[in-house]
Parts: sequence; structure tokens; C-alpha cells
Amino acid sequence: MNPVKIGIAGLGTVGCGTVDVLIRNADEIARRAGRGIQVSRALVKNISKDRSCDLNGVELTTNPEDLLNDPEIEIIVELMGGDSGIALELVQGAIACGKHVVTANKALIAVNGNQLFAAAQKKGTMIAFESAVAGGIPIIKVIREGFSGNVIRRLAGIINGTGNFIMSEMRTKQRSFQDVLVEAQDLGYAEADPAFDVQGTDAAHKLTILASIAFGIPLQFSHVYTEGIDKIESEDVEHAKTLGFRIKHLGIAAQVTDGIELRVHPCLVPENRLLANVEGVMNAVLVDGDAVGPTLHYGAGAGAGPTASAVVADLVDVVRTLTTDPENRVPHLAFQANSLSDIPILPIDEVSSAYYLRLNAINRPGVLADVTRILGDLNISIEAIQQKGDGSPDEFLPIVILTQVTLEKNMNCALERLAQLETVNSDIVRIRLENLNWS
Amino acid sequence: MNPVKIGIAGLGTVGCGTVDVLIRNADEIARRAGRGIQVSRALVKNISKDRSCDLNGVELTTNPEDLLNDPEIEIIVELMGGDSGIALELVQGAIACGKHVVTANKALIAVNGNQLFAAAQKKGTMIAFESAVAGGIPIIKVIREGFSGNVIRRLAGIINGTGNFIMSEMRTKQRSFQDVLVEAQDLGYAEADPAFDVQGTDAAHKLTILASIAFGIPLQFSHVYTEGIDKIESEDVEHAKTLGFRIKHLGIAAQVTDGIELRVHPCLVPENRLLANVEGVMNAVLVDGDAVGPTLHYGAGAGAGPTASAVVADLVDVVRTLTTDPENRVPHLAFQANSLSDIPILPIDEVSSAYYLRLNAINRPGVLADVTRILGDLNISIEAIQQKGDGSPDEFLPIVILTQVTLEKNMNCALERLAQLETVNSDIVRIRLENLNWS
Repeated sequence: MNPVKIGIAGLGTVGCGTVDVLIRNADEIARRAGRGIQVSRALVKNISKDRSCDLNGVELTTNPEDLLNDPEIEIIVELMGGDSGIALELVQGAIACGKHVVTANKALIAVNGNQLFAAAQKKGTMIAFESAVAGGIPIIKVIREGFSGNVIRRLAGIINGTGNFIMSEMRTKQRSFQDVLVEAQDLGYAEADPAFDVQGTDAAHKLTILASIAFGIPLQFSHVYTEGIDKIESEDVEHAKTLGFRIKHLGIAAQVTDGIELRVHPCLVPENRLLANVEGVMNAVLVDGDAVGPTLHYGAGAGAGPTASAVVADLVDVVRTLTTDPENRVPHLAFQANSLSDIPILPIDEVSSAYYLRLNAINRPGVLADVTRILGDLNISIEAIQQKGDGSPDEFLPIVILTQVTLEKNMNCALERLAQLETVNSDIVRIRLENLNWS
Repeated sequence: MNPVKIGIAGLGTVGCGTVDVLIRNADEIARRAGRGIQVSRALVKNISKDRSCDLNGVELTTNPEDLLNDPEIEIIVELMGGDSGIALELVQGAIACGKHVVTANKALIAVNGNQLFAAAQKKGTMIAFESAVAGGIPIIKVIREGFSGNVIRRLAGIINGTGNFIMSEMRTKQRSFQDVLVEAQDLGYAEADPAFDVQGTDAAHKLTILASIAFGIPLQFSHVYTEGIDKIESEDVEHAKTLGFRIKHLGIAAQVTDGIELRVHPCLVPENRLLANVEGVMNAVLVDGDAVGPTLHYGAGAGAGPTASAVVADLVDVVRTLTTDPENRVPHLAFQANSLSDIPILPIDEVSSAYYLRLNAINRPGVLADVTRILGDLNISIEAIQQKGDGSPDEFLPIVILTQVTLEKNMNCALERLAQLETVNSDIVRIRLENLNWS
């Protein structure tokens, strides 16, 4: 089947990130969506500007009409930002001519969503906006579809990465707000005008959206109480720490007796809560439903890759709806049934892991040397080794070893040899060890 | 529109939990799904058994054919368990007569999923199985739809609550495996035959499903390397702790150069990782995609409410597909556009919160008494109060106060009065405090 053609408006960090992901993962995306996705046109401010992404086959234009008037373009991806101006006109135009919309624009949705959704529903077009809240975390899908059986009681989230980075740095490095803000700008986290981040407007846009899908209320951005982190002083960060708290910038929405709370502000949180331990530019949202109970959803809240992940997920959702039977819209195993792969599952012998070992060995000179030699002969590096206890000579004492990563069959071989040592009890404990340093 | 009629097979903990949620949240569910959901028949082993849920209007039967032959029933919810026998026959029968299936049965899907999905696709019926993995966490939806733009590199999860409860208790209370297992059975966490939990079979069923939707491979339960926690000794839990690790029972799936790793086993994890801090019966799954990066999904992995949450979410997904236009299958704001509610957003004055206050006050007898009297007059309870530093008399020193929950307008009144004290500097710092004790 021909690929679905899309037009992208905006080729900044997120726009180029989206083009990158669509090209890099084209095969996996088509296997999932049942059809390829091809960027055919892109709207930019400056055509001659150098860009990092591969724009081979993409027609650049400065005129929104070129995207709207192209009958082959079925989906417009709006990644320009702003709650008015070109972004708004483009989305309105897309709906008017029956094109579907994917947008990462939280301001646009929070401020104009009620009108846009009404227009889209009339026209039978889709507006998908997963990337507008919490970057790569599919929090909109989770609340809107995953928790549809619940009365959602409340949610609380760290939904502005820049603000969380600043609060983390202030606490862990005793730095001042101003000092960290300048670094965040240098690192490209904060906007040149950081007001949206540090005064809470960005978080308020996102909270508006989350509250509506959680509680079934219209978008009401103007009713969010919003306080930024720009008044937080180092002294209070320190006092909070002493008392066992961390100051986080939270968006909170809750159903209480008389109505709904909707507020963005700095907040002391007990240091042992999961949310208190979300550091740097990461985002996390706690959601509490009456059936599911408390849940946490954690991941990168911004950046090219994570935001592109959400944009492409929305694209796949739309393409699946366009292309496949309702009953098979989402394939059972995520990939179309005819495109499952036959990559082999490795037998455990061929798996690599680090290991914890516990040997009971006679407390006698030379025993440790025998043990380490056997591991060394098999090229197994030792990360740590401890002989426990201080028993009498010739008593059995535990030796605890942490190894570096090695092949399981290699470790099996080592264990066989170790068990043959006369000074070592043959019941050797072996537990695998995962650093999870990717998490 | 008439409600969608469903038949439930199995009225144990999860079955009754599902009936409860469908009744309790009927209004919210219908507002989301666009149509009510009504249980019209239930398959049970023993009709006369007392059950905790409201079965008004539900026809009980011991004969699966009564569900299959009822032309009004559009969806069969299979909550009996087991990878063969009645559960399998019922699901096969449902597909054969064109009914959709929602199931919480991980064994059934892991072992027979390939055949069942093929049959369902041929017939144009849906099989939804979110509740089969990690209870209330919508992890299948997250991976299958939320991360569809990613090449998923690996995932690691705590996906058996009983096993995690046992490992948590062994570590925090220095108890033996056998001792905790007996308690888990008493608490109803572990099955009477706990082999599926403690030998890792249950986790292997779930990992099979997660790996297939992550990597696009057929279900291959027989290829999962599986090791339980039943051999873990207290001694090793203690050694691991000393070395800065916790032992967790993990399911791990990873794409490596030569193939796919698929393994369930106990594992040392550094104690500062989020996954190491998932305690008791909670579940969590780490997923790493090439675009989104590391993400964590945390919630209750079992129990009536959380599992029912996932069962009902699947039901709503199916009902939305049956009922609404493809373009409006999932309403923009989760609830059908004509059923948004007008619950008011509370002004911040009407919001209740605990508070952190910092006052700069003259170091003089009677000042603390003035401050606490003002708070007391307004019925604001003090949780903690500290006068910092030991400066000379009449110097300004900070007083830090944590209050209990009070109404914001009450606190505003207190702050006004405090600022009028001659001994207190009028720049009073006020930061809200959330215990998040629901998370």
C-alpha cells in the first residue's frame, strides 16, 4: 500500500526529531501501522537554513497553503508552537479541508482546544496531541483509554522538565535559582525567554489538558492557579531538606467535594515519595483512580527523541484508523500479523549478565587465589570480592563475589571448576545482577 | 442507545471486582464509551455460592453455551484462568460465533495466543487482554500504541506482586522465604498452590506477552528462561544489602546482536534505581525505546480493583469501536463531547493545603507565642516549628513552620496578621506542602 503522506509545520528540534524517527524506524513503523508514513512537505520560516535532518524528498515551503492545498497530504503535523497566529490558522485550515491533525502544541490545545475539537468532530477529522503533555510519556492515552473504567480522584505531576532541572540542581548542589537558570539556558533546556517554564505557564497548559481528560470537563486554562519557581530561595530548599522534604514544581488536579482543584505551584513533598525522586529534566505523573489506585508514569518530558516518540505514536494511531478494519485497528501483538519477525530467542547459555556469587570456602591461605584464578582464566572480571566473618582457620566462611558482565555459559564453566576445588563447598549460590544503568 | 450486553465467565475476585466497577462507575463509563455496559449473564461453577457483588439482573449459569448462544451478548469476558479446558473452549467458541473477547488470562494468551489471534482476525472479532499483564498498569496499551514510533531495545519489570511482596518482606524484616510465603497465602496474595508465583511461571507468561508486543515476534512461552525466588536465602538478601543492592524478581526482555533475551529470574539491582524501590505487591515495568528513552510504569499488579480497571478499559475500547465513528472512536477529552460536566474549578482561596512558612522574626521572648497564637486563633494546627540559628537577642532569625491542612483563605488571613506583628518581617515565605500519602 502507498505510504500515507504528511505535511510537517516547523522543523526545529521536535520537527527534525520527528523526521529522524520516521526515517530511522520506517520499517518498524510500517510493520506496526500497516502502512508507511512519508513526509512530503514541510512548512518553515526560512527555507535556506541548515537543518540536521534528512530532507530528501521533502518539499520545503514558507506558505501554509502549500500544505493545506496538497490533496495527497492526509495529516498535518503542527510543531510550531504558540496559541494563535500561524499555528492556529494552520490547524483550523487543516480541519476545514478535512485533514487530520497531530500537534505537540500545549498552548494551542489548552487555549483553543474546545473550539478546535468541536470543529474537528463536525468535520470527522482527528486531532491527536499526545506530545503536548509530558513528552514521551503516553500519559494522555493512559488516562483517556487505560483508565476509562475509573473515577479519577486526583493527579499530581512534574510536567515541566526545565523547572524540575532547576529545583534538582538547587537542592543537590546548593546553587541559586538564577545561577541554575543560566545553565539551563546554556544547555538549551530553557527558552531564551524562560517565563513559560519558570512562571508555570507551560505546566498550567499541560495541567489544563490532563484535568479535562481525567474529569471530563471542558478545557479551562484561565482557571488554573499558577505560581512559578522563580521566587524559591536556596534557604527554603535547605530548610525543606532538613525537615525531610524536597521542593518540587507540581501540577495538581483533584476532585473534591465542592469542585475541582487545578493548581500549579512549588510544593514540599516528603523525600521518600517516588515523585520526590524524579530528578533533572525527567517528568512523572501520579494518577489515582478509584479502581486502579495510585499509579506513576515516568519518562523524559521534552527533547527531540521523546517528543518525536509521542508525535509518531499519534501518527500511527491516525494511520491505523485510516487504513485498517475497526476490529483490527490495533494489531493484537502491536505489529501487523503478517509482519511478525522470526528473530531467535537466545538460550540462557548465550545471555550475558553480571553475577553475584556466594561460595562457602575453607578459611585457609591460597583459597582466594584459587578462586580468582579460575575466574581470571575464563576472562571473568571481578567487580568486588569479600570474605565474610573472621572464623578460625579451616572453618567454612562465605566468600561473596560480584563479577562484571560475562556470558552465562562462561559462568557455568567457572562454577563447575569452582565446585571442584577441595576447599570450596559445591553448593555455590549464583544470582544474576543487572545494573539497569540505562534506566 | 441501548447498553452493550456482555457475559462474564468467572465470578471470583476479579469477576466480582469487574461487576462492582461496572455498577459503581456506570455513569462515567457510559459518558466515556458513548454507551452503557451491562452484564447480562455470568458463567459460574456453583450457582448457589454467596458472592459479594450485586448480581441483580444477571442470569447465572453453569453452561458456557448459555453465553455463546445468547445473540444479545456482544462481548465475552473470560476471567476463569488456565491455559486449557473451559477457558480455552469458551474463547474459541466466542470467536467462532463472532463475539469479541476480553480476558485477564495470561496463561491462555501466552500459550494459545498465536492461534487465538489468527482465528479472531479471520472472524473480525477483537481479543483484548490488558488485564493479563501487570494488573491496573496499562502497559500493553503503552507499548503497543504509546511507543509505536520506537525500536524498543529492552524492558525489565516486576510483574508478579506476590514474589515482590516476599522479596520486600525478606529484606526489610529479615524474614525467611518460607515464613513470608505462609503470610502471603494468609493475606490471599499467593495461590494455595504458590508454584506459579514463586517459581516464576506467572511472570514468564506475562513476559512472553510483553516481549511479543515490544519486538513484534510471535508468542513463545516455551522459550522463556524461568527461575523462581524459592531458592533465595536470607543470607544472600543480607549480603546484597551490604553491597548496596536489592534482590528483585525480574522479567527481562532485550534485543541484542544475535537475538532476543527472554528471562525471568531473581536479580540484584542497585538500591538507588526506581525499580529497586518498588515494594510490596506493587508492579512496575521499565521500557527503553530508541526515541523515548527510559520510561517507568508503576501501579498495582493484582487485586480486584486494579485488574477490573484494566478489564473495563478493554471493554470501553471494544465498545468505542463497535459504537462510534472511526474518527471519533476515542473522544478528544476522553468523555463524549456531549457529556462533559460543568463541575466548577475552585478558586485558590477555597483550596485546602498544608503549608511551609518561613518568617524572619526578632529573637526576643514572646515572639513565638505571638506567632503560634495567631495560627491557633485561626484553627491552623502546627505540625512542626523551629527557630533557626542562635543569634544575639534582637537579631532577626528565621522561624520555620509546617502546618497541617487548612483552607487557603484561612492561611492568607493568618499571613496578613503575622505580617502586622512588629517583631516579624513582613516578607513571609509560604510554600504549599503535599504529603501525597495516597501515592
